[in-house]
Parts: sequence; C-alpha cells; structure tokens
Amino acid sequence: MKTNLLTTIAAALLTMIPMQAQKCLTLEELLGGGNHYWQLQPENKHTAWWGNTLLETTPEEVTDLMTGKTLLTVEELNEWAGEKLVHSGHNLTFPYPTSPYVLVETPKKRELIDFTTHKIVWGQMTPPEAKNQDWNAISRHLAYTVQGNLLIQTCEGEIQKVSEDGSTDGSEDIVYGQSVHRDEFGIVKGTFWSKDGQKLAFYRMDQSMVPSYPQVDITERISTPYIDKYPMAGEASHRVTVGIYDVQKRKTTYLKLVGEAEDYHTNLSWAPDGKTLYIFELNRAQNDMRLVAYDTETGEASKPLLQEKSEKYVEPLHGLTFLPWDNTKAVIQSQQDGFNHLYLATIGKDGRITLDQLTKGNWVVQELVGFDKKNKNILYLSNESDLRKKCLYALNLKTRKTKQLGTQEGVHQVTLSEDGTKALDRYSSPDVPRSINLIDTKTGKGKNLLTAKDPWKENGYDIPEITSGSIKAADGKTDLYYRMVKPVNFDGNKKYPTVVYVYGGPHAHNVQASWHWQMRGWEAYMAGKGYLLFILDNRGSEWRGRDFEQATYLHLGDIEMQDQMEGVNYLKSLPYVDSERIGVHGWSYGGFMTTNLMCSYPETFKVGVAGGPVIDWKYYEVMYGERYMSTPQKNPEGYEKSSLLGKAKNLKGRLQIIFGYNDPTCVPQHTLSFVRACIDAGTQPDLFTYPGDGHNMAGRDQIHLHERITRYFEDYLKPQQ
Amino acid sequence: MKTNLLTTIAAALLTMIPMQAQKCLTLEELLGGGNHYWQLQPENKHTAWWGNTLLETTPEEVTDLMTGKTLLTVEELNEWAGEKLVHSGHNLTFPYPTSPYVLVETPKKRELIDFTTHKIVWGQMTPPEAKNQDWNAISRHLAYTVQGNLLIQTCEGEIQKVSEDGSTDGSEDIVYGQSVHRDEFGIVKGTFWSKDGQKLAFYRMDQSMVPSYPQVDITERISTPYIDKYPMAGEASHRVTVGIYDVQKRKTTYLKLVGEAEDYHTNLSWAPDGKTLYIFELNRAQNDMRLVAYDTETGEASKPLLQEKSEKYVEPLHGLTFLPWDNTKAVIQSQQDGFNHLYLATIGKDGRITLDQLTKGNWVVQELVGFDKKNKNILYLSNESDLRKKCLYALNLKTRKTKQLGTQEGVHQVTLSEDGTKALDRYSSPDVPRSINLIDTKTGKGKNLLTAKDPWKENGYDIPEITSGSIKAADGKTDLYYRMVKPVNFDGNKKYPTVVYVYGGPHAHNVQASWHWQMRGWEAYMAGKGYLLFILDNRGSEWRGRDFEQATYLHLGDIEMQDQMEGVNYLKSLPYVDSERIGVHGWSYGGFMTTNLMCSYPETFKVGVAGGPVIDWKYYEVMYGERYMSTPQKNPEGYEKSSLLGKAKNLKGRLQIIFGYNDPTCVPQHTLSFVRACIDAGTQPDLFTYPGDGHNMAGRDQIHLHERITRYFEDYLKPQQ
Repeated sequence: MKTNLLTTIAAALLTMIPMQAQKCLTLEELLGGGNHYWQLQPENKHTAWWGNTLLETTPEEVTDLMTGKTLLTVEELNEWAGEKLVHSGHNLTFPYPTSPYVLVETPKKRELIDFTTHKIVWGQMTPPEAKNQDWNAISRHLAYTVQGNLLIQTCEGEIQKVSEDGSTDGSEDIVYGQSVHRDEFGIVKGTFWSKDGQKLAFYRMDQSMVPSYPQVDITERISTPYIDKYPMAGEASHRVTVGIYDVQKRKTTYLKLVGEAEDYHTNLSWAPDGKTLYIFELNRAQNDMRLVAYDTETGEASKPLLQEKSEKYVEPLHGLTFLPWDNTKAVIQSQQDGFNHLYLATIGKDGRITLDQLTKGNWVVQELVGFDKKNKNILYLSNESDLRKKCLYALNLKTRKTKQLGTQEGVHQVTLSEDGTKALDRYSSPDVPRSINLIDTKTGKGKNLLTAKDPWKENGYDIPEITSGSIKAADGKTDLYYRMVKPVNFDGNKKYPTVVYVYGGPHAHNVQASWHWQMRGWEAYMAGKGYLLFILDNRGSEWRGRDFEQATYLHLGDIEMQDQMEGVNYLKSLPYVDSERIGVHGWSYGGFMTTNLMCSYPETFKVGVAGGPVIDWKYYEVMYGERYMSTPQKNPEGYEKSSLLGKAKNLKGRLQIIFGYNDPTCVPQHTLSFVRACIDAGTQPDLFTYPGDGHNMAGRDQIHLHERITRYFEDYLKPQQ
Repeated sequence: MKTNLLTTIAAALLTMIPMQAQKCLTLEELLGGGNHYWQLQPENKHTAWWGNTLLETTPEEVTDLMTGKTLLTVEELNEWAGEKLVHSGHNLTFPYPTSPYVLVETPKKRELIDFTTHKIVWGQMTPPEAKNQDWNAISRHLAYTVQGNLLIQTCEGEIQKVSEDGSTDGSEDIVYGQSVHRDEFGIVKGTFWSKDGQKLAFYRMDQSMVPSYPQVDITERISTPYIDKYPMAGEASHRVTVGIYDVQKRKTTYLKLVGEAEDYHTNLSWAPDGKTLYIFELNRAQNDMRLVAYDTETGEASKPLLQEKSEKYVEPLHGLTFLPWDNTKAVIQSQQDGFNHLYLATIGKDGRITLDQLTKGNWVVQELVGFDKKNKNILYLSNESDLRKKCLYALNLKTRKTKQLGTQEGVHQVTLSEDGTKALDRYSSPDVPRSINLIDTKTGKGKNLLTAKDPWKENGYDIPEITSGSIKAADGKTDLYYRMVKPVNFDGNKKYPTVVYVYGGPHAHNVQASWHWQMRGWEAYMAGKGYLLFILDNRGSEWRGRDFEQATYLHLGDIEMQDQMEGVNYLKSLPYVDSERIGVHGWSYGGFMTTNLMCSYPETFKVGVAGGPVIDWKYYEVMYGERYMSTPQKNPEGYEKSSLLGKAKNLKGRLQIIFGYNDPTCVPQHTLSFVRACIDAGTQPDLFTYPGDGHNMAGRDQIHLHERITRYFEDYLKPQQ
C-alpha cells in the first residue's frame, strides 16, 4: 500500500506547484538513480509463488492473493525468529510447494520458518567471505567460493572443501565455482546442483595464461592496481574444465572433456536422475557445436549426441529442459532453421538423440517459460503475432496445437505456479504502463490483478507523442522497426534538432511493443527540451532470426551503419526534422556505432555522444569478439576496416566520448587509443570519464551522466537563441 | 647561413599571400611544435668556445668569429673520420683550450679529431644500452648506467662495474648513478667526476619501500603497466647514499653519512684536489641544512662546516664553486639574509668555514656565471637594476667593487671564455628579439655580433601591444609585476573578453624584461582572436627573495589567489575589459591555481582551462610537497584547506582539465579524484587527456593542445555572434 500512499503524497505535492504552460519531466523523475524516480513509476504489485498459491508481498506482510488471507506479517516473523531478521515482505520466498516454510535470506544467515507453527525449522549462518552462494532447497547444502576456491557447507553445517589449488594470492590464475567464458553463451554462474542437491557440477578455470588488464583504483591513498584478467581477441584464452563433486562421497570426478583446451563448455544440464551431465561444447572458432553427455560417476564422455556446424557461428544459449513427466525427453532451443525455435529431444536407450521441431515460422521463441504438467503443455513467449511483441503461448505436446494466452498486446513476463496450470502474466504495451493478470494456462482465461494508470498523465506532465513504424533496410527488402519520440508540444511547421539513439549490436533491440514503445527516460527528457528522437533496430539486432543477426559477420559496423543511414534518409524526408541538426548517441556497441557514424558520415552528424565504445575489436574479449569477427590473425582486413582508429582523422563534428574509468568490458584502451589517434590526426574529440565506474553508470552517476549528455547537445546541436 | 636563407624564402613566400586587413600569427608559427615555427624565429648565430676563441658553428662548418677563418668543414671532418659521422657543425665541441681537438659525439661513438693534423686522436664506441652517460674530458673515462647498475668504460676501453646490486628485474628498487630526490635541490644527475676524472662520486638510491604509481602504456597490443616509483607526501621515501669510486684502485668507498636515512644529499662538490667531497645535507623536514665535508679515501665525515635552520624551509640549490686561483676559497649562494646572494667561503686549515658576504640588497643573484681569472673578478647575473631583468655584473674580489657589463636592458644569458676575460652575452629585451655580443669582462666594452630584426614585423604580421607594469599585492604594500597583451587592432571603446594566464608557484616567474615581456606564443594567438591577456607574478614566485616566496608556506594557493584577485580587480577597473567575460588558464601549479580560482571565485571566472593540475598536495611528491606543505600528518588543516576536492562542489563556470595520461609529475590521481568529487557533488567539469604524454605536451601535441584550449574559450568565453 505504501507505493500508493507515496504516489498520492507526490501528487498532492505536485499540485502545489503553480501551473505552467509546460510541465516537463526531469531527470530526477525519469532515471533510476533519480530522487523522484519511484514516485512516478506505474503502480505495482509484488508477488511470489508458494506452490500453486499466488501471494502478494508488501513491506509489511504476505497475503494470499486469491483469498485475501494474511499468511504472515513481517512483525510476526521477526517475533518467531527471535530477532529483527527481516525488513520487508518483498525479500521472502516460499521454496517448498507443500510445506508452509518461508525462507529468509540475509547477508549473514539463511532460515526456514514454519509460518503455521511459528518455529524455526532450519537455519545456518553464512560462512565469512562467502561469494557466489548457491543454495539447494532440497538438500539445503550451500555451495560458495572464497577467493579462487570452492567450498560446501552441508545442511548439517559441515564445511567441505571442494577445491585445493584455487588462487588465494590475489592472482586469480585458478578459480573454481565462478562464471566462466566471460558470461557469454548464457553462462551466469559456476555451480550447478543436481536436482536432489547431492551432486555439484562446477567450473574450474585456469586463466594463468591470460594477462590482467591494468586497471587502477584511484580511491586508495595511493592509486592501486588490481587484477582484471582480460583475454583479448586472437590472444591466449583461459581454459575451463568441469568437475562433479559428490557431497556424500566427498569426492570430485573431473569430466574427461573431449575437444581442445580452449573450447567453450556451455549450458550445463543435469539429467533428472543425476547420473548424466549434458554440456553444449563449442570450439574456439565457434562454428562447431557438439552436445556431449558425461557419466558423472566415471567422467566418461559420450559420442556427440548432436552436432551443429556453421559457416559463420553457432551460439548455444540454452541447455536441456527435461519434461517434468518424462525423463527421456527434453526441450531444447536452436536457430538451425534460421529462427530460434523449440525442439523436442528424445534420448534413446543408446543415448542417441532425435529432434522433433515443435515451433516453426519466421519469428522467434523468446523464452521457454515452463510446463503445464497437468495438461502436458509447453509454455513459451514468442513474437509470432508481431516481431516487436513478446506474448504467451501454450503448445500441447499431443495435439501440437498452439493457443495464445492472455492479451496479444505488448511484451510479457510470465512465471508459473508449481503445476503450471496458472500463470502470473505481467505486461506492458505502448499505452498500458503495467498490467498484472493471473491466467489459467488451459483455458487462457485471466483475472486482472492490476492495471496501472499512466503516472505521468495522472500527475499532469506533458508527454511526447511516441510512435513506432518500419522502414526498409539498406538491402531494400528487410523491414526495420523504429521508434520516434516527437518534441513535447510538437508543431509540424517547425524544424526540430534530432537525435538518433543507437545500439545496433547483437542480443539487443531497442524497439518493442512495451510501454511507450520502450522509450528510455532520457528520450522523454530530450523531447521536453525540444528534440525529436529516433531509434532504429538495424540488421544485426535480436528477435529477427539468424540471417538478420549474422548479416554483420566479420565486418561489424558496416551493414549496421548502412541501415542507420536509411533511418537518417527517412528523417531527412520529414518536413519537421532539421537536417542540419542531426546528432547521435549510444553506449557500448552504440558507442562504437556513434563514433563510427560521426567519423564515417561527418557531413550528416553534427554532434555525437559515445559511451564506453568499442574502438577496435582487437581490444575486445575473445568470446564475443571472435564470434562476430573471428581473430585478428584470420580476419585482418575485417579488423582493419572496422577499426575506428583509422577513421579518427575524419572527425569533423563535435564528439564526446564518455567511459567508465574502470570499465572491465570495453577496457579504457579503446577510448584512449582513439583519443591518441585523433591527436595524431589533428582532430578534436571531447572526453569524459567516471572514475570508479565500470561499463555503465549506476545510481546518482546516471543523473550526472545524462545531465552531461544533454548539455552537450544543448551546447552544440540546438540553435542558440 | 642557412637560417638567413630560410627566413628569406619564408619572407618571399609570405609576400605572395594577398594582403588582408588583419594578418594574425597562427599556432603553427607561434609554438615550438608548429610547422612554420622556425621560419618566424628571430635570426640567430650559433657559437661555441674553444678556450679563449669564440667560434661560430653552422650546419656546414665552424669558423673563428673574430678572424672569419674556417677551422673545419663538416665535409672535411667526415673525410678525416673516414665515415659520415657528423651531420652539422652545431653538435661539435672543443673541450681542450690548448689542443686543436674537436669532439664528435654520436649515439654510437665518441671521437676526438685533431683538425690541424686531420687525425683521429682518440675514439671509443658507446657501450650498448648505456644511459646517463658522463664523460670526463681530462681522463676520458665514461661513466654510464645499464638498468639499475653503474659502470665505467675507461679511456683505454676497459669496462669496470662499479655497482653489483642495482636492480635488473625492472623493479627499479635499487638504482645507481642516476638523479635522486626527484630532481629537486638542483640535482639533475647521479655521477660526479673529480676534476682529474679519476674518482667518481655517485648516488645509490634504495627505493624498494616506495610504491610504484600504476602507470599504463596504452600503445602496446594489450595495455601494459610499468614501474614509476613515486613517493607521496607523508609516505615512505627513498633512501640515498653516496659512494666514491677510484678508477685506478678499482675500489668504492661509501661515505659514512651522518643524519637520518631519509635525509637529502644535495649539491655534491669536489674539492679541486679530489680529496674531499662537500655535501649540503638536509633533513626530511627541510628546515635544517648542514654542509659536511667527507674524506673520499676513508669516507669519514667532518663536523658540519655550516648549518642553516629555518622556521619554514632551507633550500640548497648550489654547491661550492672554488676560486680558480685559490683552492681554499669557494663561492656559495644563500638567501639567509632574505635574498639570494653570493658569499665567499674560506676553508681554514682546521676545515672550518668562514663566510664573507659578497653581494647584498633587496634583489637576487640569479646565476653565478664564472670568473675572470686574470682580473680576479666574479661574474654573475642579477636583477639589481630592475626586478624583471637579469643583467651581467663583475665583482672584483679585491676592491669589492661591482661593474655592470653590457647593456642594462633585458634578460641575459652568458658564457665565458676559458680565462674569463671575454663573455658571450646573449640577451633579449621587450623590443629586441635577440642580441649577441662579445664583451670584454674587464672594460665592459662589447662588440655586437648580431641584433635580430623583429621577424613578425618584418613579415607584416599584426602584433599586439604588450606592456608590463605593477600593482599592489593583497597585503597592500608589495609590488607585483604583470604583463598585459592587448587584442590586435585594440579599440579602447570596446570591451574585450579577458584571459588570466597563471602559474603562481615557486621557482618560476612569468613576467620578465625579455622579448615581448616574455609573452608566450599562445598569448599572441589569442590577442589575434580578440582577447586581452593578463599575467601577474603573485607572491610565492621567484626572483623576489625569501619572504616573498615563503609567504605561501603551509597553505599553498591561499595568498597566491588573493594576489591574483588583486589583478582581477585591476582588470575590472579598466573600461576595455569585459568583466562578465573573464577566463583563466594555467598548467601544473597554474592548473592548481586555475581550478582553485574557478572553484573559489565562481562568480568571477566564467571559463577556465587547467592543465596537469595539482588537486590535493597529498598526491604530490615528498620533496617539493613537504617543502611547502610539511606532511599531511603534521599539517592536516593546511592540506585540507588547500585541497580542491572539497571545492569541487562550488564549480559553476566551464572548467576543462587536461592532463598527460602518463604524467609522472602530477600523477593522474589528482585530476581523476577531482573529477570523481565533481561527479559526487553534481558539478560538471570537462576533461581531456593526452595518452602517452607526460606532464607537458611536446611537438605536434602542443599544437593540438593549444587548438583545444583556444576552442574552449571561443566556445564559452567569447560573445557568440
């Protein structure tokens, strides 16, 4: 309820401000780090599943959303715990579908409390310095790392040391139980419990051969260097192996990995019985993927169960998801037919796999949500109705018929009840800031739990007109989607300075059918200041299938810019766009695009702000970089042509490059090399850095950053009065 | 003659440019790194002494300036050498007053050639990797370093290794034969030959306890850190000892230094007989200096021969200069009476020293030039006629009478013939770009060798009006000198944007009576663009005596800014200064001043460009920093108040900070900490860095830098048309 209260207070305060002709949103209201951000966010309802029961959590309590009955209050819970353990109901989870246990996790401890008997059922202190904590609710064992080593605290509290030779000297040469391959291939962690929580698969990474990028902490009394292992394209890469630790036997079995030392070992998937671990393995060149099954007792590898080769690249991003009702069948995802689709993998008695394509079409499955166990449905999100949408579908495994669930509008995010018969469906669409619905996954019928009003309109702010449409790509045939944000109080007879915001790289899109067509807060701010904003998803971006994405292979930047220039041509055709005042802004890949556009089309773009840019792909990491560019040794021409160092001499307009001084992703060598190249060529970029920040700015630094970006366009793009 | 030819060609080319209303100098003409810089420099004549004969050197030949007779041509010399050894006569020296030997030094070898017999008299290859070469012309031994070690190549070519434990692992923990104490206290090298070149005094520095500032070379394939030992104020400092190596005996004697491990050992001076080495020793607190004599055979120390204490600091900058005709007497310099003056030190038989003050007055001796051996005169430069000048005087040791030599105008640079009866006097004055004269040091009579015409006027450029005057300091009584550069085509009825250029720190001045009152090229450029420039030497700067300099002790920036604000008040009183458009620019200490002024007087200064600034003295080095600020531990309030980190929040105007990314003097932590403080405070400085550059930009980077500085004032200080 507090959110509502705050909104009401904010609204009351705001009505006290004298009415003005124009009431524009500020950065403090529009950005996550802003002091008034939360006051102007759409109303929300926090929920959690307890088995098949949907709960609502508030700072004060947890209630059954269907019955309205209070399960527990935070005050009660702290009484039962005998200490002030919990500060909000939002942080509570209910991991056991059939037991009335609430899990409380704090930085110092983990406790299970029975909210019917009010007893602490189980509890454990967190070991000091434990990082990468991975707790299994079935076995209640905790896997964690301390420096380079991996340890387990068992349910009973015994500490078992899994690794012996992890680096403890700060070198990070050998690390256990941490994410590997720089979080590519869908990897986000380094420990993987078997279903019963008795066996732990884990990564061991040897990066002793990988240089540390010389990062510096300037906040120490004397600036201090620190280790940041960074394998650059074409250079030595780390080596990863996989171990299986058996908690009962206190024994590690290392898998007898096939392939080369620098192969990628991705999407580790446990068989439900815990006897087999499946790994999607990929060669360093990333054009040959094999699915291999390992016997977790002996470590022996199977022959490849599946193999996929490509003239460009194969990118495994998802493991095997076994059917809950059949241990011989699993769902996998592949874009082998050109679009990411679901396949049913049947594992024969000989271990061989046969694939059966479940979905098909010139659209992509964006997410496998789960299963309706009762009705044998597979639930997934896809953009089959509109390439900018993400909607929920149920596919019946027997009939193979697909049913769309919930509204066909917008971009959805879905979680299922334990049996999968109910779906909590959260979505927004261009005109709907937030809608929360509970849907019956068989009938598709829904119950609306919340539909938020537009908090900006409610509070009397001027909102720009936001539209989406499509133009043709530079190939003359492919549709590209754009978003256009018109200046507040738009007058079609005027000419407006225009800013192209761009990302342009793989695994991302900027235009989707969510609230305001996914407009970023800063765009609304700029619209308030009289700018027109234009955002186009060029070829190479996601949700459009393999060929669309892979069009950029070996020559990043080239096709992407051609498409963006089609967007500019479209802009120039509009009477209200001031063609003499076109700017560009983007971050990361978008920083690469921004710098590239400024240097490649110096007559078109007058002002640019590039954030954390890639300047030369040889300074980028092995995994991402070589996937799209191969190595500098094998693709010297592509690296040469895509490098912005040679284009530094073409800079004419105003370009400000901004980077996190401690950026571990696009390391500072990118920007600094470009600056050096500009100096040598006699061109004048501008520069700023955020000491202590990484690849992106968070919190208050976001506000500072966007004031800075805005000021640059105000200084140089806007007509001076 | 080539210089004249070039000037003539340049002049010819320039006359072909169509006449315009205004002909302003460009950065390419005004700055050292410019492509046309040398074409517009005042005419020059290169000279060298051979004993008492003054020679003129040109790229092609060397001639006797008095007789006009050619000594040798470069072509001949290369014939005699049997190889193309020499490319220009400018690089030749004549180290033996009575032998017709020319010394040729190339990166690979050293050769002495008799230009009468045309024979190679002596020659030696330079050992590979030899750094810090120190060749003694008497013994012809060469001292040099390789990594941390010190070696000698004797006249005969034998290599003797002086040190054994110098660092060869790149750590630079132990270094021999290199400059120590970060080039403070007048130290510029680490080896000191006795007069006969048979004994070598050398420094050994242990800096294993000093952290390396984390500097990064971004030009490598993967950015690479490198060692840069940097002792910060209040932190552990290096430890220096002194050894004496006897070439004949192949033996090192370490001096038995008195005092503490972190003491400074400065201004090493050999007694003429090579038996004694004098050292001016200073405690780390720099308020207690002792002159100690060491027996170079035994290493034993004398009792202090002299001692000077201060409530602020004592700064020894010069050693003992023995009278050529009396080994018991030496000239030393001291500002113990409040101004730097000459003293005659007489060394008694008991080793005790008595001092006899030779010069006196409220002015300073700027340089001890040498001696007229014949007439027993001491020759020195001082500003006794005008505090902005540097003129030549002869002091007779018997009569104690002083005679001014040459013109009383301008700023002079003087070298003496071997016997000191002739002085080569080069000077410039506000209206004279360059004058070269040969002066009889007894009579003061001179022969003019060259008086250069104004190359700017000759070539038809518009030259701004440049004047100098004085105002009162903030104490209401002290005179401070300024230079004012008025805009080209000045119109007293207009109001001009005004830029204060500032340095403001010790050991420097910006206003002297040399050509154009020492105007920097960039000032002329800015004057051409319509700016008025103002440069004021505040209290704390040099040439004004001890109390003037030491007024800033323990609170750097405070008094300096008060004085600069008196300058601003004066500017505001002028009808042609636009008080709403005052900017400020400075580098190093001037960067500290600029940033400080922008943050301390945000209503006064609209735009600033600060280069390589000190931001917080705790990030500056021990030697310089503690001299003026003591340590952060002993002077916490002074450090706190002088730090700009706390002032970052006050920034209002436009401030661009520029620093060398590899600055080893004001390390990047200064600027980066300030940027971080501004971000945290929500203020918006601008920033630029020169990767690969140190504390100052050289060559082409100078041009880029000044284009950049100029653009910033053009963008933000100049009224937009």
